[in-house]
Amino acid sequence: MRETDRMGGFAKGLKIIEAFDEEAPRLSIAEAANRTGLDRATARRCLLTLSELGYADYDGKFFALTPKILRLGHAWLSATPLPAILQPHLDRLSEKVGQSASASVLDGTEVVYIARASQRRVMSINLMPGSRLPAYCASMGRVLLAGLTDDEVRDALAASPLKANTAFTLTDPKDLLAEIAKVRTSGYAIIDQELEVGLCSIAVPVKDSRGRLVAAINIGAPAGQISATDMAARFLPALTETQSILRPLLR
Amino acid sequence: MRETDRMGGFAKGLKIIEAFDEEAPRLSIAEAANRTGLDRATARRCLLTLSELGYADYDGKFFALTPKILRLGHAWLSATPLPAILQPHLDRLSEKVGQSASASVLDGTEVVYIARASQRRVMSINLMPGSRLPAYCASMGRVLLAGLTDDEVRDALAASPLKANTAFTLTDPKDLLAEIAKVRTSGYAIIDQELEVGLCSIAVPVKDSRGRLVAAINIGAPAGQISATDMAARFLPALTETQSILRPLLR
Repeated sequence: MRETDRMGGFAKGLKIIEAFDEEAPRLSIAEAANRTGLDRATARRCLLTLSELGYADYDGKFFALTPKILRLGHAWLSATPLPAILQPHLDRLSEKVGQSASASVLDGTEVVYIARASQRRVMSINLMPGSRLPAYCASMGRVLLAGLTDDEVRDALAASPLKANTAFTLTDPKDLLAEIAKVRTSGYAIIDQELEVGLCSIAVPVKDSRGRLVAAINIGAPAGQISATDMAARFLPALTETQSILRPLLR
Repeated sequence: MRETDRMGGFAKGLKIIEAFDEEAPRLSIAEAANRTGLDRATARRCLLTLSELGYADYDGKFFALTPKILRLGHAWLSATPLPAILQPHLDRLSEKVGQSASASVLDGTEVVYIARASQRRVMSINLMPGSRLPAYCASMGRVLLAGLTDDEVRDALAASPLKANTAFTLTDPKDLLAEIAKVRTSGYAIIDQELEVGLCSIAVPVKDSRGRLVAAINIGAPAGQISATDMAARFLPALTETQSILRPLLR
């Protein structure tokens, strides 16, 4: 890409938006500069622009994003037909098995939730469309990684902070590659408390009518209610049924 | 704001992101220029920047946003504690009454969903955090507008396309102001099929511990199951209970 093809200020502004998160819901100019590596004058101009356009509030010292910022992410959610096609089928799946059901796509080293039907919350974090989890230790992540080549998986794992969230988390890339190879053969992935103690989940790929992997769907259940070894027998029939219903709907 | 305080390229880039929607999930450079009023060279630079940063895919002719764009909206959802505080209470509320429950905030003339618990889908559109509805004809919208002064309400109504979605929709600003005045007195708003035939909803304000209006919560129900006149008797106790539980949690 040539320098003249790039809108530099736009790229910097997007960095500033991403600098806001749970740990930093409000940022001063200095903090925003610090978090993004941009100089203070640039951070200031980006923040003032956000504030002028209504994407941020400014109290004279701190900037905070406003709900208007949701329009940006929502542009994708409303532009892609995938969440709307998946949602009613997740609702039915979730109702049928009495557990939460979700759908996600891969973005780099993370799965991004695009739809979710919840019977009752089993995880400590609040999952919703747009939520992210590391792919290596999530059932949908394993299924989506299984759709890549081994080299691509190796790259994704090399770029992931492979953290042992629990005593059960696989963190050795060799073990993960072996697990992902199994997923390719079996057609599903089971996670036994690798993300959070007490949570099991089982995921399958969602393919479109041309056989291309477009998303993953899963069912999550409390480990106290059902053991990981029983997950396949209990939930795989409903998951594969949903999988087959979805395939002709996706082009 | 002085011209030197503005990051012009950033403002233009944000316009380009918002140009994508349900009707235009893929845009050529010419289409993006057309939808935003930007010149083609600028639209091109913004689109190429999005593509270079992984926020868009480019097939040589059309650009489409990628799920990475969800990071931008999600920055707000994870930065504000509101959705996470409200969600478990909406889940409980929804389970208790057997209907869907939602929370939203006002953004200009629209309500923006920030959390939702759904028992079963009653609306034709797929609501999720980030979804928007016009405020004037939505129960949460009426409650949030009731938190403004009459002048502010008049301005908001003047800026809204007051469309008769159904034969029941109030579209005369005078009628709407009278309705909003009633909401101020009664403390709740009921919508009887003004948004969509077959859908009723009832909303109440959520205030923080200092008494400031921070959001609205509602219960939606199929009009065939329960008439609008029964909504208050049936759902108001559960709504006001949730309201009181939330108040001390919100600072």
